[in-house]
Amino acid sequence: MAHIKVPDNLPGILGPIAFSPETAKPLNALAEVLFRGPNSLPPADRELIATYVSSQNDCHFCQHAHAVVVAYRLGDDEKPVNDVKLDFESAAISDKMKALLAIAGRVQKGGKQVTTSDVDRARQLGATDKEIHDTVLIAAAFCMYNRCVDGLATWAPSDANMYRENGRRLAEVGYIESTAQLPAIEKEYA
Amino acid sequence: MAHIKVPDNLPGILGPIAFSPETAKPLNALAEVLFRGPNSLPPADRELIATYVSSQNDCHFCQHAHAVVVAYRLGDDEKPVNDVKLDFESAAISDKMKALLAIAGRVQKGGKQVTTSDVDRARQLGATDKEIHDTVLIAAAFCMYNRCVDGLATWAPSDANMYRENGRRLAEVGYIESTAQLPAIEKEYA
Repeated sequence: MAHIKVPDNLPGILGPIAFSPETAKPLNALAEVLFRGPNSLPPADRELIATYVSSQNDCHFCQHAHAVVVAYRLGDDEKPVNDVKLDFESAAISDKMKALLAIAGRVQKGGKQVTTSDVDRARQLGATDKEIHDTVLIAAAFCMYNRCVDGLATWAPSDANMYRENGRRLAEVGYIESTAQLPAIEKEYA
Repeated sequence: MAHIKVPDNLPGILGPIAFSPETAKPLNALAEVLFRGPNSLPPADRELIATYVSSQNDCHFCQHAHAVVVAYRLGDDEKPVNDVKLDFESAAISDKMKALLAIAGRVQKGGKQVTTSDVDRARQLGATDKEIHDTVLIAAAFCMYNRCVDGLATWAPSDANMYRENGRRLAEVGYIESTAQLPAIEKEYA
């Protein structure tokens, strides 16, 4: 049971979003720009960074919720995100993405863990200042979202299939518009 | 030197805010509602939670930037915030605030660290669901802001006096309006 009274059938961050619409608004706006704003990093790569950080934070809801967005965006290919969670350095992703995931992994441990050589590696592989900034911010933001979800002890479906419809919705209509659909989403999980 | 190219004379998170106005907008909107939105917790208490978490994350800029807001809001009294950073359980603050700071400290370590007994303690001392939710979210949000500031290796003034004018501005005009004043702020730090 969650630490505060949230709707029974809204898993993960959807409970706090329903509980506190005034804070949900900037939280959703941040996710919207991080994942769906103009960026040379494809949305699937940005969702991959979020999934990886959430798995490092052991946040069941967030890592599954964003893994299905990655898979959906790659044409229902679940292998890259599963491989990244196990060991991103040996996954079939670009060297630039490996360097960005290494930065994200440092941020997950603490801001001061990011070294100049981490950043130099990414830059030498073609990462721009914006890509480095957004990688740090996505990783930092998921240290927030994960803590919001688990710090309030919200409910998370154990069945991975229960994340799919939500993942498709996040990829297709986004984070702000999904919140407008909370009453319908609550029925999906009932 | 910061890991990405940000304006030389903007310390801490102000550099990333200038670098990335599109992400700055929700980041500032979140701080605005967390610290200045309607809430039974006074703004000074909310800023105190942020300062404590930033000190636990060893984020020099954020802990000083928000400590001066606390002090300003308490009529230039720096003792409570300094005492809280040293040992909040023995500081001259309410028992409810001690219970909320205990929750914030757990969130700083990881969302799953928050226990039912932490929440029960706060509730028995009068904390509402909204106060518990906002405490968790402020603590979680500063795990983000701190990582953004330090993960990008931004500059932080070592002289505590250099935070005062910014603290007064944050208390008086807030987080969104301060961003509109970035060109003037850059001159303050030049």
